[in-house]
Amino acid sequence: MPAVIYDTIVEKLQSKRGNIKEPLRLPVERDLAKDLNVGRDTVRRALAELERSGAVIRRRGKGTYLQPIRYAAKGSLKGATIGFIPPWWADSTSAWFTSNVFEGIARWADEHKCRISVLHADRHSHDEQKWMERTAENELAGVVWVHPENEQLPVIEHTACHLPSVVLGRSYLGKGFHHVMPDYSKVVSLIDSHLISKGHKDYTVIGAGVLAAYSQNWLNALEQVFENRGTVFDPKQHYLDIKPFVRDKLAKLLMEFYEPIHPEVSAYVLTSSSYLLPLIADAEFRAKLEKNLSVITFDYGLYPIETYWPGHSISHVACNWPQLGRKAMDVLEQLYLGKDMPEVIFESVEFKEGSTVHSKV
Amino acid sequence: MPAVIYDTIVEKLQSKRGNIKEPLRLPVERDLAKDLNVGRDTVRRALAELERSGAVIRRRGKGTYLQPIRYAAKGSLKGATIGFIPPWWADSTSAWFTSNVFEGIARWADEHKCRISVLHADRHSHDEQKWMERTAENELAGVVWVHPENEQLPVIEHTACHLPSVVLGRSYLGKGFHHVMPDYSKVVSLIDSHLISKGHKDYTVIGAGVLAAYSQNWLNALEQVFENRGTVFDPKQHYLDIKPFVRDKLAKLLMEFYEPIHPEVSAYVLTSSSYLLPLIADAEFRAKLEKNLSVITFDYGLYPIETYWPGHSISHVACNWPQLGRKAMDVLEQLYLGKDMPEVIFESVEFKEGSTVHSKV
Repeated sequence: MPAVIYDTIVEKLQSKRGNIKEPLRLPVERDLAKDLNVGRDTVRRALAELERSGAVIRRRGKGTYLQPIRYAAKGSLKGATIGFIPPWWADSTSAWFTSNVFEGIARWADEHKCRISVLHADRHSHDEQKWMERTAENELAGVVWVHPENEQLPVIEHTACHLPSVVLGRSYLGKGFHHVMPDYSKVVSLIDSHLISKGHKDYTVIGAGVLAAYSQNWLNALEQVFENRGTVFDPKQHYLDIKPFVRDKLAKLLMEFYEPIHPEVSAYVLTSSSYLLPLIADAEFRAKLEKNLSVITFDYGLYPIETYWPGHSISHVACNWPQLGRKAMDVLEQLYLGKDMPEVIFESVEFKEGSTVHSKV
Repeated sequence: MPAVIYDTIVEKLQSKRGNIKEPLRLPVERDLAKDLNVGRDTVRRALAELERSGAVIRRRGKGTYLQPIRYAAKGSLKGATIGFIPPWWADSTSAWFTSNVFEGIARWADEHKCRISVLHADRHSHDEQKWMERTAENELAGVVWVHPENEQLPVIEHTACHLPSVVLGRSYLGKGFHHVMPDYSKVVSLIDSHLISKGHKDYTVIGAGVLAAYSQNWLNALEQVFENRGTVFDPKQHYLDIKPFVRDKLAKLLMEFYEPIHPEVSAYVLTSSSYLLPLIADAEFRAKLEKNLSVITFDYGLYPIETYWPGHSISHVACNWPQLGRKAMDVLEQLYLGKDMPEVIFESVEFKEGSTVHSKV
């Protein structure tokens, strides 16, 4: 009766979670099968199920970790207060991206009768101990972190030990907290197949800070998409890191310094729609765009894409940010109720064709 | 000792407020002076002081009303929950205007350690009784209404009987609640003197719904400004109500149907920056704008003015919306502490010269 054996193993590992306080590294599959006296296939199926539910997390090259049960089951979030942390790089609920995420969160809170405390980076300690005092003082029941940066990780990890914590928009895997993310594989594959179909085989992806978690999301997805079509994405050649340059002069940077040595580039992919502003503001670049250059972007920036160039529009991949906010609250609620959740929940995205993309063929 | 008499009268009227539950219409100044056995001047000074503090409200053509003491003095707002009501016509915290107001409110709340419940129009009863149950259930300590419409008045008036209530952005005087507003007299006088200085003597003000409270703010201010320079603002001639028309085709409406019979118009004043989108999206109108037409606007719309036409900008009067949000919370706190506040607090505005305003002279 292999199904029974498999259930027993899932149960065994589940019950073990009550006795651990830190993630427990499990033996490799073969050893675990020997320990439990079952076949490797049974172990593999059991681990896959546990991974789906979030009870087990696999770290590439590091091993498989059984997760402790972090939060005791509680009643609903009704009447509770959720902490909302705007991105440190914006530190405001009013930037377009943040306000859209917040819109979903505020609606969810309204429907579920819970309250919100917006905690701004500049007002709250980045010191873990003091931060915990602050969350206790605010009587928070959970925290949503919007697009946090590397510098925020210690505080988030610390918080996640005590409070359900969801990171929205960027992924930092294996840290013990949960994520809600746009499906970047889908973002990149939609962009790639659109550009290929328009004859743009050579395109350059423009991003800021190649080492930032946000850029890593893109690079991993690009690698995967290129691999799927049997080629290699070479970041040194196809990824333009504009972090060291003045963003306001992006159009000039491309036209005067980049294009002369990359004449084959016929399209730009912007990892953030906020790069559109300096591009579109340049009349010369705008004229090129109407003739023989394509720009495609992901609608993640300071304003919605439609506002950048009235009367025209730019092809882009759109993410329903309010929906992402709602998902973060759904995950938070499940965690608050003591349930397991997968480490990352992906939200789907949508391609929107603009009127300014022209084929070079 | 007239100062003493005057203090006594202020005190007398103040103490009377404890015994009334509804606003009490006071006798006309002359009768009041007779009743209190003092001079009319003393009465006038006392009433002026009471009006400044919000204890007395004057209704043009209706009389002078002594206000009841509505809210008992309480401790600070720390730990309390404030209700935030987005405008019914947007019903979202993510529109640019609302998100900027909210940014100020969220920061204030963070600094004062209080919480927020965003209550969306479509989720909450418009029935006064049910609405009061909802505010009780949410344990609200006060409510901020953003740019409410006429239809919301019964609910707001009802709420204000029990809870400190501040209306932000539109004014409905004499209803028993408080307002925080951009200084529209200032908005209009800045616009008027700018256009006059550029030689635009004939301009048309574009607004939606002449009977709406928002348009009334503009019309009153325009009347005043014109009166100050010894002329008359005739709404029939200078105010274009675009409510019955398709907003998307505003440029065509102006060029094909309005301008042929108003050749003297050399500038448009937009009461909302959101009208810029359909104007700027029209290439023909845009070309005119660069030659011999001025547009000036108030930065109140879906996006900040700078995004509408990258590389150019439109002269406008800017209001610090986050600051207005903070002011609303300041007023709410004072009311919560049982203090009197003036019925309207005006927030100052600022003129910003754009690069597309050309003189016709």
